[in-house]
Amino acid sequence: MSLITVGSLAFDTIQTLEGRAEKVLGGSMNYFSIAASLFHPVSIVGVVGEDFPKEHLLRLENRNINTSGVEFKSGKTFHWEGSYEKSFNEAETLKTALNVFETFQPKLSQEQRKCPVAFLANIDPIIQLDLLKQLESTDFIACDTMNYWIHSKKPELLKVLAQVDLLSINEAEAYLLTGEKQLRQAARVIQSYGPKALILKRGEYGSAVFCNEEIFLVPAFPVEKVVDPTGAGDSFAGGLLGVLASHGVSRKDITETDGGKNFFRTLKKAALTASALASFTVESFSFEKLITASKRDVQERQEALLKWITA
Amino acid sequence: MSLITVGSLAFDTIQTLEGRAEKVLGGSMNYFSIAASLFHPVSIVGVVGEDFPKEHLLRLENRNINTSGVEFKSGKTFHWEGSYEKSFNEAETLKTALNVFETFQPKLSQEQRKCPVAFLANIDPIIQLDLLKQLESTDFIACDTMNYWIHSKKPELLKVLAQVDLLSINEAEAYLLTGEKQLRQAARVIQSYGPKALILKRGEYGSAVFCNEEIFLVPAFPVEKVVDPTGAGDSFAGGLLGVLASHGVSRKDITETDGGKNFFRTLKKAALTASALASFTVESFSFEKLITASKRDVQERQEALLKWITA
Repeated sequence: MSLITVGSLAFDTIQTLEGRAEKVLGGSMNYFSIAASLFHPVSIVGVVGEDFPKEHLLRLENRNINTSGVEFKSGKTFHWEGSYEKSFNEAETLKTALNVFETFQPKLSQEQRKCPVAFLANIDPIIQLDLLKQLESTDFIACDTMNYWIHSKKPELLKVLAQVDLLSINEAEAYLLTGEKQLRQAARVIQSYGPKALILKRGEYGSAVFCNEEIFLVPAFPVEKVVDPTGAGDSFAGGLLGVLASHGVSRKDITETDGGKNFFRTLKKAALTASALASFTVESFSFEKLITASKRDVQERQEALLKWITA
Repeated sequence: MSLITVGSLAFDTIQTLEGRAEKVLGGSMNYFSIAASLFHPVSIVGVVGEDFPKEHLLRLENRNINTSGVEFKSGKTFHWEGSYEKSFNEAETLKTALNVFETFQPKLSQEQRKCPVAFLANIDPIIQLDLLKQLESTDFIACDTMNYWIHSKKPELLKVLAQVDLLSINEAEAYLLTGEKQLRQAARVIQSYGPKALILKRGEYGSAVFCNEEIFLVPAFPVEKVVDPTGAGDSFAGGLLGVLASHGVSRKDITETDGGKNFFRTLKKAALTASALASFTVESFSFEKLITASKRDVQERQEALLKWITA
C-alpha cells in the first residue's frame, strides 16, 4: 500500500548565490514524492492549473507515484518566488501566488483513505484537520507546517499536532511555535503537543531528530557545490517517510513496542538516508539532480556521511 | 612540556537572550587555557592592566597553567562589549577597548620557546609572524584569526597560514578569507594556504574538521540551556589542542607518518572531547561553568554526544 501525501505542486522562480531559475517545477509535495518514491510507492493528492505540464505527471507515474489524486482546475498553478541571495540558509519570499491552490479542498477516495502512512505537507491546518478525519484508519501520520500558519492559525495547528505521530519543521519555526529559545526545550514542548517523533530541520547543518527521550543529530551531507536549497527539507521528509513506510511503521511502534527502541533505530537510519538523498536536491535548481539519484547513489553518500560522523 | 598559547585576557560585558553580565573575566586565551589545562599543562603569554585581579592568575596556576608570561602594565585591561540579542549564533560587537593590549609585543623566554605545541590565539597577524620566528623549533603550531584581521592584514595573515599546521576559524570567516561561498571549496583553499588541518567552527551547530582529504563533522553538544556562547570556540580550540598536546603530536604526523591516518583518528577524538568541553562554557556567563567541569563530566558528555551521532 502506498504512502499518501497531500501538498503542493508549484512553479518556483528562484535566485540564489549561484544563479537564477525562472518558473521551474517545484512544490513541497513534488520534492517529497520524488524523494519518497525511491523507497516506497507514493500516492499524491493536490491541485494544479491549466498551465501545469501533464508530462511531469507522467514522469512521476514512471517513478511509482500514483498521480490520480492530482486535480486540474481552470486557472493558474501555485507560483512561489524566492531568493537566497544573502545565504543558502535563509529563503526570502518575494511573491506567493496561491492561484488554484487557494481553494484546494482535498477529498480522498476510499482507496486513498486506506493508505497506512500519510504525510500532510505544508498546507492550511484547517485542511490538515479535515484530512485527519478522512484518514481515521491510517497507522502513522506525519506533517509539516510553516511560520505563516503558526502566525495565522495556531489553534487549528495545535489540533493537528495533537493527532500526528511525527512533525517535520524548521528549527526557527519550532522557536516561533513554542515561544522557547532553546533547542531541547522547544523539542520537549512540541512533543507535549502531540508528536512523539520530531525532526527539527537546520538547513545546511542537517537535522536534530527527537523521539520520546532520545536524540539523534544528523548532519547535512556537505556537497561540493550548493546551487539551490529549495526543496531540501521536503526531500529529507520524503526520504525519511519513504524509508519508514517501507518498514511498515505504525503509531504504536513509537511508544509501545519495545519502548520505541526499534522504531528509533529505524528512524535514525531513515534520517541518515534522507540526509544523503536531500543532498542531491541542493545540487541543482528544481529536482533535476534529485530525480537522477539512484538507490545506489544515495547509498554511496550515506556511507560517506556515516564515515564523516564516525569518531 | 607545556602547550604554549599567546592571546588575550580581557573583561567582557555581554548581553544575551538569557541575561546580562558586566565586566566579567574573558579573553580568548583565558577560555583556551582553562579548557586545554584539563588535558595538558599550559603556559600563557599575555598582557593585562592594573585593574586585572591577581587572584584570577592564582586560579589559573591551580589548574597547571603557568602564568609567568602574563605581564602587568600600567593602564586598563582589554575590554570587549558584545551582544547576542538576536540569536545565540551571532555576536554583535558594541565596543572594543584594546587598552594595554594595543601595544602588546610578546617576547618568549628560552623555556617558552622550547614548548613543542603552540596556539596563537586571535591576535594581530604581525605579532603572530613575530611569534612564529621565536617558535622556530616548535613541533606543531595552530592559530585562530578573525574578520578584523582578514580585512585589515590579509597579506600578513597569509604568511602566518603558510607556516601553521592547524587553523581554527569561524565558518563565515572562512568564506571571507577565501572569497568562496561553499564549505568544501573554502576548506580546500585554506588548506592550500598552508594548514593541512582545519577546524571550521559553526557555532551551535558544531564544527567541520578537515585534515588532508578527510572530513569529520562534529555537532555541538545540545545543552539544556545556552546562557552565553562567548568563549565556546576558544574552549573548543583549547580542548582540541590540549588533547593533541597530550598525545605529543608533531607536524610530520599530519602528512608523513601513516599518511596522517593515526593523526586524523586522534584529531577526531580530540574534536569530540573539545565539543563536549565547550558545551560547559555556553551554560554560564564567563568561564564559571567551564572551570567546574571535571574530566569525568567531559567524558560523560562525550559519551552522550557519541550516542547522539551514532546511527
